[in-house]
Amino acid sequence: MSHPVPDVLALHGVVPPLVTPLDEHGDVDRRSLERLLGFQLEAGVDGVFVGGSSGEIALLDGRQRRAVVEVAAGTVAGAVPVLAGVVDTGTRRVIEHARDAARLRADAVVVTAPFYVQPHASEIVAHFRHVHAAVDVPVVAYDIPSAVGARLTPGVVGELAEAKAVVALKDSSGDLASFREILRQADLPALTGSELLADTALGLGAAGLVPGLGNVDPHGYVRLYRAMRDGDAGAARAEQDRLAALFRIVSVADPGRIGFTAGALGGFKAALALRGVLACPATNLPLLPLNETETRTIAAHLAEAGLGEV
Amino acid sequence: MSHPVPDVLALHGVVPPLVTPLDEHGDVDRRSLERLLGFQLEAGVDGVFVGGSSGEIALLDGRQRRAVVEVAAGTVAGAVPVLAGVVDTGTRRVIEHARDAARLRADAVVVTAPFYVQPHASEIVAHFRHVHAAVDVPVVAYDIPSAVGARLTPGVVGELAEAKAVVALKDSSGDLASFREILRQADLPALTGSELLADTALGLGAAGLVPGLGNVDPHGYVRLYRAMRDGDAGAARAEQDRLAALFRIVSVADPGRIGFTAGALGGFKAALALRGVLACPATNLPLLPLNETETRTIAAHLAEAGLGEV
Amino acid sequence: MSHPVPDVLALHGVVPPLVTPLDEHGDVDRRSLERLLGFQLEAGVDGVFVGGSSGEIALLDGRQRRAVVEVAAGTVAGAVPVLAGVVDTGTRRVIEHARDAARLRADAVVVTAPFYVQPHASEIVAHFRHVHAAVDVPVVAYDIPSAVGARLTPGVVGELAEAKAVVALKDSSGDLASFREILRQADLPALTGSELLADTALGLGAAGLVPGLGNVDPHGYVRLYRAMRDGDAGAARAEQDRLAALFRIVSVADPGRIGFTAGALGGFKAALALRGVLACPATNLPLLPLNETETRTIAAHLAEAGLGEV
Amino acid sequence: MSHPVPDVLALHGVVPPLVTPLDEHGDVDRRSLERLLGFQLEAGVDGVFVGGSSGEIALLDGRQRRAVVEVAAGTVAGAVPVLAGVVDTGTRRVIEHARDAARLRADAVVVTAPFYVQPHASEIVAHFRHVHAAVDVPVVAYDIPSAVGARLTPGVVGELAEAKAVVALKDSSGDLASFREILRQADLPALTGSELLADTALGLGAAGLVPGLGNVDPHGYVRLYRAMRDGDAGAARAEQDRLAALFRIVSVADPGRIGFTAGALGGFKAALALRGVLACPATNLPLLPLNETETRTIAAHLAEAGLGEV
Repeated sequence: MSHPVPDVLALHGVVPPLVTPLDEHGDVDRRSLERLLGFQLEAGVDGVFVGGSSGEIALLDGRQRRAVVEVAAGTVAGAVPVLAGVVDTGTRRVIEHARDAARLRADAVVVTAPFYVQPHASEIVAHFRHVHAAVDVPVVAYDIPSAVGARLTPGVVGELAEAKAVVALKDSSGDLASFREILRQADLPALTGSELLADTALGLGAAGLVPGLGNVDPHGYVRLYRAMRDGDAGAARAEQDRLAALFRIVSVADPGRIGFTAGALGGFKAALALRGVLACPATNLPLLPLNETETRTIAAHLAEAGLGEV
Repeated sequence: MSHPVPDVLALHGVVPPLVTPLDEHGDVDRRSLERLLGFQLEAGVDGVFVGGSSGEIALLDGRQRRAVVEVAAGTVAGAVPVLAGVVDTGTRRVIEHARDAARLRADAVVVTAPFYVQPHASEIVAHFRHVHAAVDVPVVAYDIPSAVGARLTPGVVGELAEAKAVVALKDSSGDLASFREILRQADLPALTGSELLADTALGLGAAGLVPGLGNVDPHGYVRLYRAMRDGDAGAARAEQDRLAALFRIVSVADPGRIGFTAGALGGFKAALALRGVLACPATNLPLLPLNETETRTIAAHLAEAGLGEV
Repeated sequence: MSHPVPDVLALHGVVPPLVTPLDEHGDVDRRSLERLLGFQLEAGVDGVFVGGSSGEIALLDGRQRRAVVEVAAGTVAGAVPVLAGVVDTGTRRVIEHARDAARLRADAVVVTAPFYVQPHASEIVAHFRHVHAAVDVPVVAYDIPSAVGARLTPGVVGELAEAKAVVALKDSSGDLASFREILRQADLPALTGSELLADTALGLGAAGLVPGLGNVDPHGYVRLYRAMRDGDAGAARAEQDRLAALFRIVSVADPGRIGFTAGALGGFKAALALRGVLACPATNLPLLPLNETETRTIAAHLAEAGLGEV
Repeated sequence: MSHPVPDVLALHGVVPPLVTPLDEHGDVDRRSLERLLGFQLEAGVDGVFVGGSSGEIALLDGRQRRAVVEVAAGTVAGAVPVLAGVVDTGTRRVIEHARDAARLRADAVVVTAPFYVQPHASEIVAHFRHVHAAVDVPVVAYDIPSAVGARLTPGVVGELAEAKAVVALKDSSGDLASFREILRQADLPALTGSELLADTALGLGAAGLVPGLGNVDPHGYVRLYRAMRDGDAGAARAEQDRLAALFRIVSVADPGRIGFTAGALGGFKAALALRGVLACPATNLPLLPLNETETRTIAAHLAEAGLGEV
């Protein structure tokens, strides 16, 4: 049961935030999750992130959350780091989740600013420091203002890095100027969550990529990352352009009918089902499913991007 | 251990959203919570709401959350309804909390729209319907856009009321025009969370009040409610004016130093400690405490409002 | 050409923010505006407000803006105060408009916080003080955060009232708690822009009403105002309920097709055209018009409210 | 009086959005503006943009606005294109300003989405098409959601480019992913307003730069632009890093005392006064001035960036 311990202190490369496959009863579909993990590892990813926003973390109950970490840690078996999202509103809630994740052998936990409450920057710093002090697993900071309302500013990230309270940053702020400032100043690996500025962020010094679209096309992001690593910006850019066209799958759903999250995550899952990786494209309660027309549009985008069944 | 079963289908009157007393170690201070419950019952409240926003629900861990419901249900013993907040981001998480609360003998659970995710109105309706179907305890809808981002519109509330998926509404939207539309159309008791428009909301047909400031001065809100019930709008208004002055305790903290939530909930707790109800004014991680100057200002506001030790 | 000078220092009653009638060429339709003014005066309004948000002030050019004030001042001829909106982004721009309006015999000008820029509260106060000092006509403060982004807080309004820089407030904040605080503290007449809480605001001490829906049904708001003045809250409430149903005309337009402003102002103008007051329901560039289906829905709402041709 | 007509259809390079120098009476300081224009031309800029956000366009009255265009067109005399901001809330207002600017020999006008009103995307398109049809001068689209609330999406820009209603885009959205999509799809030169991602945007295909900080250090942005043009990304990046440090001058002001706009534009003007380009750092009503401490911090940032008197 012992396996190599991945070095999360040197987090880098492609680390997709995996969707959480569900069966038709709404339970975690362990077989599909294993298949997804295998598909990712075969593509050459450098880590996996389960229980992130793409993993519907906000919609999973405790049993689902634990199942996901357990399957991921068991399947990956130390080949690459397994990051587990422990997204919750407050410090104590996050610590509870983080201890669960550590027990289930996650290599790091991914933590956002507190939400529901309206924290001051100094309270955001305190949140991360308390989580760090309470758990026996490295903490990755996750900046996602579209979901939590607050920002992790360059000042906050710098303070956390200096205190060694966090070992890395996932930036999903959409604000590349602020991300660049963090790259300039903070002494920690910073990864971008952007699907559309992956080559750009790497060019600015990002350590890696956490693209939701990497669920559907990990080979594409691995090629992009390696091209940048090898100094071939032109090849990376061509790959990025192809992936930008594919990214339209997150916005095929009718915003008059279902929500943004349902459309985006439903788009990833529909594409993975069409590619034969997931048995079923279901999302969790209370998200509504894509309809047939929308699914056909996704199939067309896959075909255009040259992606078939795996 | 059997006690009368309060009729939450006829929820009405003053139902304060209680703070969660903590001791200096950060554990729930059961003794102070019992004292707070006694103080409220003695003042004549018609229900209590534990684990709401004022109860720091977003910051409590599972043990704290269960302790609060257990102490409240045991102490109140059926004298009035005990509502338990089961605030979380998604349907399955809420169902987990709601089953806990029901097992601990809460008379109803209080549920917000999903958050972190960006739901469509039809997904918000689905959320409440799934929670209602899954738990054996009445559901109260809680509209609090400042915390969750989404609104419970008159259309959503009307649909939930008609489906009997919720038995009441707590409105903390700050939008009295929309609340009035709900009072016109929806067939369910609707309570306002406003500290400042309590008499006005009752005059428009609200069934009751859920004022955070009721922690500090339940007698005031009970007098206000009874005056409105007895048709004495002038007396209610005088009481409301006095309470509006007292409400300044939520904004004494310096916004350059600590967050809004820390200032507001810290203000309630400092006042309750000054009045001798709580042993300690501590708030939960990661909120920062009020300082001495701020606490002295709160003491001055209490004195001005005629509130001493109890 | 001399006429009585209305006392804007005692602004009160029903003061509808009039739409700006346009002909099919997009020019101000002076005949229709005269008819609208006559319709309002006949209904018993206590003032008129031209060039407000309902008057498409943001979309009028200088010639249109001057025409509107000129026709209003000439037609009303001192019977009631004529307020002119001088809405613009900065102090100097507002002063230019205000001098034009004063020259054209407006009795007061209505001024918002600066926008496009991001002002501090102290700069908002400075804005009003500079405008007041520069023009020879009373200034009414206009709080409309949905359009300008900033708030006129009770503190700002109190400071302006004490300095006698403004003579009245029009509150379109949608925040009745803050409006009530202003009524408690500031020594100036405060009018509400709410269509839906008119009776409530008057009950709290508002001096009057500035409802966009008053374009379509001034008789209704005059009856409501007089009922409150005469202590008949029940009659006022019945009128308010009828007007709330009529207010649906602002939201019949499809938000997937045209903007909120186009739908709301188009709804007022379509109703006025259906009632025979305006010759043409056109709105200004670049707003798109309502379609036939939407116009038929408006006709149905008018019929339901008992409003026919005048 | 005839001079070469610059080709705004091929807008490119460094086009700083110039501040509007004022004297101690608040009038446009023509001498300082001439000096600023000379300073910019000597540095090698490829165009100048007067009356933009940095030019306090929202705070200028008609006389100031006209003076600025007149001085700029006269001083530049065809050496490079002179762009004039014609920022206003609605189509007709914008057309008025644009005709003024064309008469005063601006080479192009710069137009935002409508604001104060809440337009639909199709109304934003209509706005630009009407302005284009009404004026005899090329139109540059200006995306600045922080000031106007609305976005110019890739779809809107693509439609405007295809209709030849606009000849270029200035992007101040802060959203580089969307800007990149416009660069991929729209057939028009697109310039970034970002001070901090200038090299990055050029690397993605931006035609040029419109950085407010270019007021203070045009030589830096010209070097950066030329380095990118000549394929020396490393030199461009070193320049960008130096400019990022200098950009701190926009945030030295205390946000508890004056607004963001006052601090940022006051920072540019204080720096230009310290460098000897402006006679006076005054900003327009109602912005409050920087204080001495803040001005000393700006002097320190200038020194650190190697910028002295010119």
